[in-house]
Amino acid sequence: MALDSKLQTEARQFKVVGTRPLRPDGVDKVTGRARFGADMSAPGMLIGLVLRSPHAHARIRTIDTSAAKALPGVLAIVTRADFPDLALDDFHADIRDNCMAGDTALYDGHAVAAVAATSGKAARAALKLIKVDYEVLPHVTDVDAALNVDAPVLHEGRADESVPAGSPGNLMAVYEFGHGDIDAGLKQADRVLERTYRTEATHQGYIEPHACLAQMGPDGQADLWCCTQGQFMVRDTCATILGLHQGQLRVTASEIGGGFGGKTTVFLEPVAMLLARKSGRPVKMVMSRSEVLRATGPTASSSIDIRIGMKKDGMITAAFAMLRYQGGAYPGSPVEFGAMSGFAPYDLENVKTIGWDIVTNRPKQAAYRAPGAPMAAFAVESAIDELARGFGLDPLEVRLKNAAREGTRASYGPTYPAIGLEATLRTARDHPHWTAPLGPNQGRGVACGFWFNFGGNTCVTLNITHDGTVTVTEGNPDIGGSRASMSMMAAEELGIPYEKVRTVIADTGSLGINDVTDGSRVTFAVGLATIEAARAAKHEMCKRVAMTWGIDPDAVEWKDGAVHPAGPNAGQHPPMSLAEIAAIAPNTGGPIAGHHEVNAEGAGVSFATHMVDTEVDPDTGAVKILRYTVFQDAGKAVHPSYVEGQFQGGAVQGIGWALNEEYIYGEDGTLQNAGFLDYRIPVASDLPMIDAVILEIPNPGHPYGVRGVGETSIVPPLAAVANSVSAAAGVRMTDLPMSPPRVLAALHAR
Amino acid sequence: MALDSKLQTEARQFKVVGTRPLRPDGVDKVTGRARFGADMSAPGMLIGLVLRSPHAHARIRTIDTSAAKALPGVLAIVTRADFPDLALDDFHADIRDNCMAGDTALYDGHAVAAVAATSGKAARAALKLIKVDYEVLPHVTDVDAALNVDAPVLHEGRADESVPAGSPGNLMAVYEFGHGDIDAGLKQADRVLERTYRTEATHQGYIEPHACLAQMGPDGQADLWCCTQGQFMVRDTCATILGLHQGQLRVTASEIGGGFGGKTTVFLEPVAMLLARKSGRPVKMVMSRSEVLRATGPTASSSIDIRIGMKKDGMITAAFAMLRYQGGAYPGSPVEFGAMSGFAPYDLENVKTIGWDIVTNRPKQAAYRAPGAPMAAFAVESAIDELARGFGLDPLEVRLKNAAREGTRASYGPTYPAIGLEATLRTARDHPHWTAPLGPNQGRGVACGFWFNFGGNTCVTLNITHDGTVTVTEGNPDIGGSRASMSMMAAEELGIPYEKVRTVIADTGSLGINDVTDGSRVTFAVGLATIEAARAAKHEMCKRVAMTWGIDPDAVEWKDGAVHPAGPNAGQHPPMSLAEIAAIAPNTGGPIAGHHEVNAEGAGVSFATHMVDTEVDPDTGAVKILRYTVFQDAGKAVHPSYVEGQFQGGAVQGIGWALNEEYIYGEDGTLQNAGFLDYRIPVASDLPMIDAVILEIPNPGHPYGVRGVGETSIVPPLAAVANSVSAAAGVRMTDLPMSPPRVLAALHAR
Repeated sequence: MALDSKLQTEARQFKVVGTRPLRPDGVDKVTGRARFGADMSAPGMLIGLVLRSPHAHARIRTIDTSAAKALPGVLAIVTRADFPDLALDDFHADIRDNCMAGDTALYDGHAVAAVAATSGKAARAALKLIKVDYEVLPHVTDVDAALNVDAPVLHEGRADESVPAGSPGNLMAVYEFGHGDIDAGLKQADRVLERTYRTEATHQGYIEPHACLAQMGPDGQADLWCCTQGQFMVRDTCATILGLHQGQLRVTASEIGGGFGGKTTVFLEPVAMLLARKSGRPVKMVMSRSEVLRATGPTASSSIDIRIGMKKDGMITAAFAMLRYQGGAYPGSPVEFGAMSGFAPYDLENVKTIGWDIVTNRPKQAAYRAPGAPMAAFAVESAIDELARGFGLDPLEVRLKNAAREGTRASYGPTYPAIGLEATLRTARDHPHWTAPLGPNQGRGVACGFWFNFGGNTCVTLNITHDGTVTVTEGNPDIGGSRASMSMMAAEELGIPYEKVRTVIADTGSLGINDVTDGSRVTFAVGLATIEAARAAKHEMCKRVAMTWGIDPDAVEWKDGAVHPAGPNAGQHPPMSLAEIAAIAPNTGGPIAGHHEVNAEGAGVSFATHMVDTEVDPDTGAVKILRYTVFQDAGKAVHPSYVEGQFQGGAVQGIGWALNEEYIYGEDGTLQNAGFLDYRIPVASDLPMIDAVILEIPNPGHPYGVRGVGETSIVPPLAAVANSVSAAAGVRMTDLPMSPPRVLAALHAR
Repeated sequence: MALDSKLQTEARQFKVVGTRPLRPDGVDKVTGRARFGADMSAPGMLIGLVLRSPHAHARIRTIDTSAAKALPGVLAIVTRADFPDLALDDFHADIRDNCMAGDTALYDGHAVAAVAATSGKAARAALKLIKVDYEVLPHVTDVDAALNVDAPVLHEGRADESVPAGSPGNLMAVYEFGHGDIDAGLKQADRVLERTYRTEATHQGYIEPHACLAQMGPDGQADLWCCTQGQFMVRDTCATILGLHQGQLRVTASEIGGGFGGKTTVFLEPVAMLLARKSGRPVKMVMSRSEVLRATGPTASSSIDIRIGMKKDGMITAAFAMLRYQGGAYPGSPVEFGAMSGFAPYDLENVKTIGWDIVTNRPKQAAYRAPGAPMAAFAVESAIDELARGFGLDPLEVRLKNAAREGTRASYGPTYPAIGLEATLRTARDHPHWTAPLGPNQGRGVACGFWFNFGGNTCVTLNITHDGTVTVTEGNPDIGGSRASMSMMAAEELGIPYEKVRTVIADTGSLGINDVTDGSRVTFAVGLATIEAARAAKHEMCKRVAMTWGIDPDAVEWKDGAVHPAGPNAGQHPPMSLAEIAAIAPNTGGPIAGHHEVNAEGAGVSFATHMVDTEVDPDTGAVKILRYTVFQDAGKAVHPSYVEGQFQGGAVQGIGWALNEEYIYGEDGTLQNAGFLDYRIPVASDLPMIDAVILEIPNPGHPYGVRGVGETSIVPPLAAVANSVSAAAGVRMTDLPMSPPRVLAALHAR
């Protein structure tokens, strides 16, 4: 790697961070002992199932549960009438309405009732006996069609104040970002490209369906075990929806078989709690795959207009994007992030984005890895690629010419500190992949991507046991290796081996609030809190040793995992190791701990450049991924294997989004492909090994320089693959997925 | 109650402490939802069972497991050979040897092998196929017989250095306490009483048998769910025995259906972990009642010689006790506590106690509520009663004359601060019970009792949720209402309602070390840490509000659950409540918590006086409890209902010990009554309502004055009942239990 030297990682020597120890959850996961959402049971437990709307849009006239209630084994039935009548804010009201429809079912799969019975068989039989009288209403599922004058309106009068009067009825909010003068900039261009791009809704495709086990007493004290990206989010959301004290609900997160943003909200959990309260028994609920696809949160589909002006030397003079995202039946598509992130990799004098948040008769979207950014990047990076190629320029050099760097005013407002985009571009340009030969029907594409990375509310507790081993308690489910990373950072800070630290994910009764595992926040924010907690413990250990030696706490220092006498006392006492200090803890005041609570700021933004070779089969339109290389700035890769895994996983999900994945709705507004046979995610045999090149431009906001890495990697692939396929096919692809029929049609149209 | 005014509780006004809110575990326990040790399951779980020695003492020549291993469904068999060969200290080596016999089975029921199979049926069948070749050895089960010259010696050469050369081979340790000159004191007496008293071993009689679910990987990372009085004790003990890092084992305590000291050690847990590691599957083990009685830890049986000199005015001139306790097959009977506590209620110029720790072929004893004290009190209080009655003196007045008080040098060394013994004696003397009429064959007895109360290593974390409700995280299983008490103390300190606090018991990965729930330490030590954690959170809240108001943190104060501007700023801002501060936490730095880690000192000693009326049936020897009143100093009764429950529960267990409970060994050294049909604990129909009189002499070592209350209440009943029965029967009863045959024999001998 030939990196600009000033972009290289500062020469901090790490002993544990940067190595690749065994993952602590590995053995349990490969031997089947890890306990996922459906793996918890309780004596006397009931099975809960949900009755779902078969209509895309329908008024619910009545629900008759009498026959179902009479069925032996049925102990509770819940409809919306069982939810407490609370004055909720829109955010929570929408979540509640999505968990259980009120007057109106807004999409195919929308929950309308739920039963709890002593067996799954009885519960299934009961669902069939619930009689719902629907008045079917007109529906709309397409983002552009939802803006038509005659489109059925989902939420009359719900639009945000950002929406001008007279706007389409399904437009819920408008976001604008940018600076400079677009028209003036366009005038300076040698060419102005205008294009419209479309992406389909895709699902996160996590392997583990949603599952939970709930228990709740008449006093409102409740316990919930569930598969989630945030037990504190589940607690606070369920408590708010059900009118409980947050502290009275204890939520334990199971192991998680994938989330990717899709488990940052609740679907079953409040329903399970109501069933549990009504029946007086624990209730387990597990979704089928069909339910996951029909009724959890895929990401938004989008329709994006781009206008970019470029001089013939590759300099962008102005850039404009109009983004229309539909986020399903409720406001809150990730269009704001799309509008912020699309042009974030570039240093632009004139830039403007407008984002429209649109509702349709589809399931309420949930976050999906860098929510909103991949679609925007698809449009922007496709347009830049087309412009560069049009001028006969190297698309990497064009990006380097316009690249954001330290001091750049970002398109969404802030000014960047040290960032890694240029490093990824230069490393890509100098990588053998860039100049490797291509055969017939093959093409190479590149694209850049950006993600903000989040911080947020975070609590960590670190405790030292009697034998000097250490437990770290964090509050974020481990979706990407956080237990390994936290153990490594604690071991690094304390100067002990990785094997002497165990990190556990605490339930909500055992730790303070932690924001949901999202935004690539965990390694950064929980890592920061872990390091600070370890430092607090070291401070306490210094005090204990100073007390034992009868000297001032300032007269000792921590060095190499031990307390040493310092200054004038240096050499007066042999150093005391952590294990030795642990042994004297009871006699020097009691257990030794370190704690840190913080709303973490300073998460460094992250950039990636992806490079991909594809081959298009001219007879079938099938696209094969030949070679794929990810170049991404990790800040500091705590456990490089996990970082590579994140790079690879993001790339693969992006490839699926680019090539095959899509929600297919029929004329009747029902989902036609609610299963993994028809909703096609890439499998191992579809893919080459994804090469991952880790760059390390330290984040000044983290003691070890860590940036989030999980999300940026899904941002470039849509565009990188599209640029590659467009090159291979000799025709510009603007609509995703580039499935064989669509590619074939483009080849024929060419 | 007419109390000496200086002994009254200081006039601190409490709002929550001292009230009787609903217990937080109540609904779950009465509806069957509370999850005890056997209520946890895991997919793929195996059932583990233990093969136990049918001999009281036998050398194990060989164990042939081949036939058992070959049985379908049997996935693992463990014998002592599967335990790692570690150089353990005696304490841990004995626990290991008790969990699984080495060369020699030392008692009837001693574990010799264990199996894990896919069903209980397969596991039971496998046990029958294990062939153990025993060489049966001579045995001894009686504490005095174990001292005979020809008694079989259990542990050659194991005696402590406190044991003089040439002592009996089963004498393991000698303890001595006291001061003054016994012979000189006895010479001043008008009468010297010499008596020998005997008590039988009794079991704690907890309703829930031992149960656990273990999971352990080849990497030593393990998880254990179990019914215990101390998850940290389980962690540290199992890790030590199995050679693991403590931090790599995460132990979660289930709800606990009684422990009373009997769950302060491990029996099944290390075995389950080895079976889990060997099989690669989770393993559940649940004891039968017979196993509980044969192979867990009852308390010691005892034989005690007393010599007390008294003047005819009731003044004790000298007091001597020689205590012989057998604690089963391993050293560590509670004779040291017996030797320390017997004379602790009295202010004596000349006092001496000698305690002998003796081993026999019985199960290794475990703690039982105020371990060692009830037997010593039985002997001492019986002798004082006999002397007082012999002089025609009021036994309460005699005790008052000799009572320990503030400034008394205790028989075991320290000098007492403010204590409550006199208050209990005076309150008893002035209580209507003391002068109520008695009928024929009825008698009234009184006795005093003492317990140290413990402090110890304790960690508490207190977190404030977004809605201003509070979670308290403690690390001690709730055996006596600690969740309610901690919630109450946190609510008191924070000025919020009890219902807004939930206290949870954390697993060992989520909190720092907490000593086992024993010694009546929890309400004192965890309460102290809870109050300190709440104060730390208040301190943090003051900082946040001061920051918001832009004033100095010293310029605000906490008052009535809110932060107020103070001093010159008073009235400048409206006060901010805890809920309001919780809402601004994310914007003022992050989540708000309070933590406290301490090795708590200052647990106040506690005293009780019990008064009991009995009636003896002259035809059958059966004893009926007519009326029973407990007078005990609680320091401060946090939740008076729980305190009364502790008083009543201790009295009832003492009544059982006094009247019926005993381990009956046959000639062959096997236990003859290993079931609740033959081992007779008192049931509700055997008993009147136990009256409880709470006195409150604040413990200066606790911010709210709390003392432990759980154990003292079992100390006086043996003697109180014996004094009552002796009065009713007209003959002095010196041997327990005073079962109908024994009482009848005494009546006949009279």
